[in-house]
Amino acid sequence: MLTGLRLVDGHCHSTLAAGLDATAFALAVSEADAPPPPGVSLLDGPVGLAIRRWCAPLLDLPAGAPLDDYLTRRAELGTEDVTRRLLSAAGLSHLLIDTGLDSPDLASPADVARAADAEFREVVRLERVAERLVDGGGVTPSNFASAYIAALAEATTGAVATKSVMAYRNGLHIDPARPAPTEIQTAAHRWLARPGPARLDDPVLLRFVLWCGIDRGLPVQIHTGFGDRDLHLAAADPAHLQPFLAAAEPSGVPIVLLHCYPYHRQAGWLAQVFPHVYVDVGLTVAQVGARADAVIGEFCELAPFGKLLFSTDGYALPELHLVGAAQFRHSFGRLLTAWVADGAIMPVDADSVAELVGAGNARRLYGLSSIW
Amino acid sequence: MLTGLRLVDGHCHSTLAAGLDATAFALAVSEADAPPPPGVSLLDGPVGLAIRRWCAPLLDLPAGAPLDDYLTRRAELGTEDVTRRLLSAAGLSHLLIDTGLDSPDLASPADVARAADAEFREVVRLERVAERLVDGGGVTPSNFASAYIAALAEATTGAVATKSVMAYRNGLHIDPARPAPTEIQTAAHRWLARPGPARLDDPVLLRFVLWCGIDRGLPVQIHTGFGDRDLHLAAADPAHLQPFLAAAEPSGVPIVLLHCYPYHRQAGWLAQVFPHVYVDVGLTVAQVGARADAVIGEFCELAPFGKLLFSTDGYALPELHLVGAAQFRHSFGRLLTAWVADGAIMPVDADSVAELVGAGNARRLYGLSSIW
Amino acid sequence: MLTGLRLVDGHCHSTLAAGLDATAFALAVSEADAPPPPGVSLLDGPVGLAIRRWCAPLLDLPAGAPLDDYLTRRAELGTEDVTRRLLSAAGLSHLLIDTGLDSPDLASPADVARAADAEFREVVRLERVAERLVDGGGVTPSNFASAYIAALAEATTGAVATKSVMAYRNGLHIDPARPAPTEIQTAAHRWLARPGPARLDDPVLLRFVLWCGIDRGLPVQIHTGFGDRDLHLAAADPAHLQPFLAAAEPSGVPIVLLHCYPYHRQAGWLAQVFPHVYVDVGLTVAQVGARADAVIGEFCELAPFGKLLFSTDGYALPELHLVGAAQFRHSFGRLLTAWVADGAIMPVDADSVAELVGAGNARRLYGLSSIW
Repeated sequence: MLTGLRLVDGHCHSTLAAGLDATAFALAVSEADAPPPPGVSLLDGPVGLAIRRWCAPLLDLPAGAPLDDYLTRRAELGTEDVTRRLLSAAGLSHLLIDTGLDSPDLASPADVARAADAEFREVVRLERVAERLVDGGGVTPSNFASAYIAALAEATTGAVATKSVMAYRNGLHIDPARPAPTEIQTAAHRWLARPGPARLDDPVLLRFVLWCGIDRGLPVQIHTGFGDRDLHLAAADPAHLQPFLAAAEPSGVPIVLLHCYPYHRQAGWLAQVFPHVYVDVGLTVAQVGARADAVIGEFCELAPFGKLLFSTDGYALPELHLVGAAQFRHSFGRLLTAWVADGAIMPVDADSVAELVGAGNARRLYGLSSIW
Repeated sequence: MLTGLRLVDGHCHSTLAAGLDATAFALAVSEADAPPPPGVSLLDGPVGLAIRRWCAPLLDLPAGAPLDDYLTRRAELGTEDVTRRLLSAAGLSHLLIDTGLDSPDLASPADVARAADAEFREVVRLERVAERLVDGGGVTPSNFASAYIAALAEATTGAVATKSVMAYRNGLHIDPARPAPTEIQTAAHRWLARPGPARLDDPVLLRFVLWCGIDRGLPVQIHTGFGDRDLHLAAADPAHLQPFLAAAEPSGVPIVLLHCYPYHRQAGWLAQVFPHVYVDVGLTVAQVGARADAVIGEFCELAPFGKLLFSTDGYALPELHLVGAAQFRHSFGRLLTAWVADGAIMPVDADSVAELVGAGNARRLYGLSSIW
Repeated sequence: MLTGLRLVDGHCHSTLAAGLDATAFALAVSEADAPPPPGVSLLDGPVGLAIRRWCAPLLDLPAGAPLDDYLTRRAELGTEDVTRRLLSAAGLSHLLIDTGLDSPDLASPADVARAADAEFREVVRLERVAERLVDGGGVTPSNFASAYIAALAEATTGAVATKSVMAYRNGLHIDPARPAPTEIQTAAHRWLARPGPARLDDPVLLRFVLWCGIDRGLPVQIHTGFGDRDLHLAAADPAHLQPFLAAAEPSGVPIVLLHCYPYHRQAGWLAQVFPHVYVDVGLTVAQVGARADAVIGEFCELAPFGKLLFSTDGYALPELHLVGAAQFRHSFGRLLTAWVADGAIMPVDADSVAELVGAGNARRLYGLSSIW
């Protein structure tokens, strides 16, 4: 049902420009940042199985080939060829790339899009704009607010969305109110006085940049739910955002809750009751692999189909982009096929829902051309 | 398995006496209170699909007919005919109607029951009795407690249950203790001094009326889990009620946790460990549509079958009553059929479980006659 | 797929040495501690169905035999024969027995293992060691810490794991830091001054014994998620442990999150991102019965297969050990078979995953011989 559909990847990252060894590969595939103890492999789990299933054939191996064979073949072909094979097979029309992770090891968005035979658009990380501003020097507590607003305007020229990683920096239990100018100045004073490279984790400033994102008027993507262990999981439940979502509603600015798992049912409710709230299955679908049918089903319990968005959240490894897309096509297709068989949806409507979730909603929300 | 079974709708509301337009219909179907942005329809989701599937044939349209056709046909037939067709097809023996929403647009409980070819019983909203009392005048801080107890006794004559909407007014994190007379008086003083029509949201008085419900001795239904955005979702987790449930246990008064989603597994545990606690699938089954098999399955993980209750929570639109009943029959039937096929339950026991959950438990719990 | 596999029961308890009546049987099967009201049976639910399905044939009755027949036959055969039949049919190579429940009604671990035709190893309950120490006399606030460390060393000779029941005594929201000696002394003073038999529920001392468990170096099992009503469910969410897990990580000591339900997805994430964290399906699989396919599937969404452990948490009734093992074999087998059919896993890998989760992970983690 989704086989021939070009998808819009509504949230992803660049891939690595160079290769990496088996240990680094395993860490990049998972949300862990340290290797597991002897006898345990991070690749022996749902996402590892999904890579063997979906990626191996694209590297001329049988589906389900052992990981050692896969990694050998991967090294043999080289990063550039592997990246091109996997990204182009993902069948994406657009990649919306979060440019907030600016490691020198990452390929440029243009290179990633070229490998994917797709267009790219930029998603600007709100916190990173502040950190770059401060690292660039010349900012004072009293000019921070205005300098940030100017920097954000510049950084978002041509961008289609902004993004908040507040879940990593403070958790989503925030005071929903816009901070007052004096609060911002006091917080900026505290922050600027800290030595070392800037890392924005002050709750007042996190709220400030989030509200600047709202004021900018582009859809705001917010990391919610799981991720790596830098975040406190319980504090990443999107239900904590409810007061902020209510406060931001009059702006009409769309807010996209990314990932959401294991709190995706809470997110689905938020998407039903708040006109401006959307949910995105990225990261979750790739990580849960064969369980994606059930998990996408849960996303679909309360969220209207017009509020549900596909993305991969692929990062560093093109395997994650490919698995995100292939598993989504397979699992959402299975879910819709089962609904058709049960008589719950008409085939023509199932096609329409597939198109909306896979591409149409993102094109409408992010203002993408629909030449595909 | 449930096809021929007349169900007891353990919690619902009246339907509208008059018709409504497409926008109002979409809002009434969902838990949203504002229309979504252009390009999104609240009806393009699980509950909308379920209406097209289950209701369209009752209006002489093919199952899955487009919503525009459905709304046209609905207008053509008129509210009275549509209501009669849908409610009578729901196959209900009794409707337990929450009379706390007293809009002039709603049909009387007797009219609703007549359209359903069923009997009705009243469920009295604890907070509304207090609000009507105060709006009626003559109440003072010092006589509030005794006046409320008398008003509740009168309001519940002939009723089969009381109901708390504390989740909407304060959240379920409550001090479990009965408030002391001086606390009640102080809180009543604060409340009575407020201008405008009475809305009971004082935490002390909410506890007071809840305990009066316990003292009244009828089963107490408590809204838990999702609903419209007036409630804070995280504060509606029924697990927050655990201290109150323990405090109320010696009374032996049954407490029915309504809706519960997405915290229904927590509710199932409460129903297993507390002798007086029950769970009710109303609202949830209709809203999640084709996903109801999985969700009812989750309700069934810990709750004994004798503690699980069917209801629709239908409100305003008879479509919600019909979908609640039809989807329950279909999905619970599928779940039980799959268990039989797996060898997990004997066919005779599956029939017995279907009867208990669909009708028998409610008849026993609410003291209904079992002439059906 | 798991039919011929001998399982390691990574966490269980002894069975009763004598018989019990129908009411006591129903309470022992469930997590309830009081009988339900008339009309409701704790056995008429998932775990009761699972007992009828899996245990009845071992007592020469047809699968699904009525519970009355089952209990009659059980009494006829006698506890010793029933225990031997059920435990030996569970197909266990090892039982890891929590010896913290020292009721005189329980059979000795050696007797239980003999009936199961398996080996046993001991799991030492951290809190119980402190309580036995204090009940034994001679402990003062100033020597408590050193006396406990010595007692724990002695109690754990030959044991393979320690266990914390902090979820029951305080909840899992704990200060992650090791308590300072003066804090321990002050808390011990408070505790020792209390009359009656010792029950360790002081938060400082709970943290102290937990850290002593870490220092002991054996894997630490922690009760998380549901259990009986003595625990506050919301406080048993394993996500609350995140700060402690981070604090304990440098030790490298494995931490096994037991039960986890309904927060098992949160637990799966913890097992993915923390190298030393594992999850155990015990109690949950038996209690949810036919729903175990879905629930085990959820456990498998983020946890690497090398981090997932089987156990029964069987206690008092050998039915719980048997159902835990039989339902796990059946449901995990169904899940893996469905994945094979979907193309998500190769048959050879499904076999390997079954062996790891059912036995291999526990043998590696708890240092068991692998003669089976």
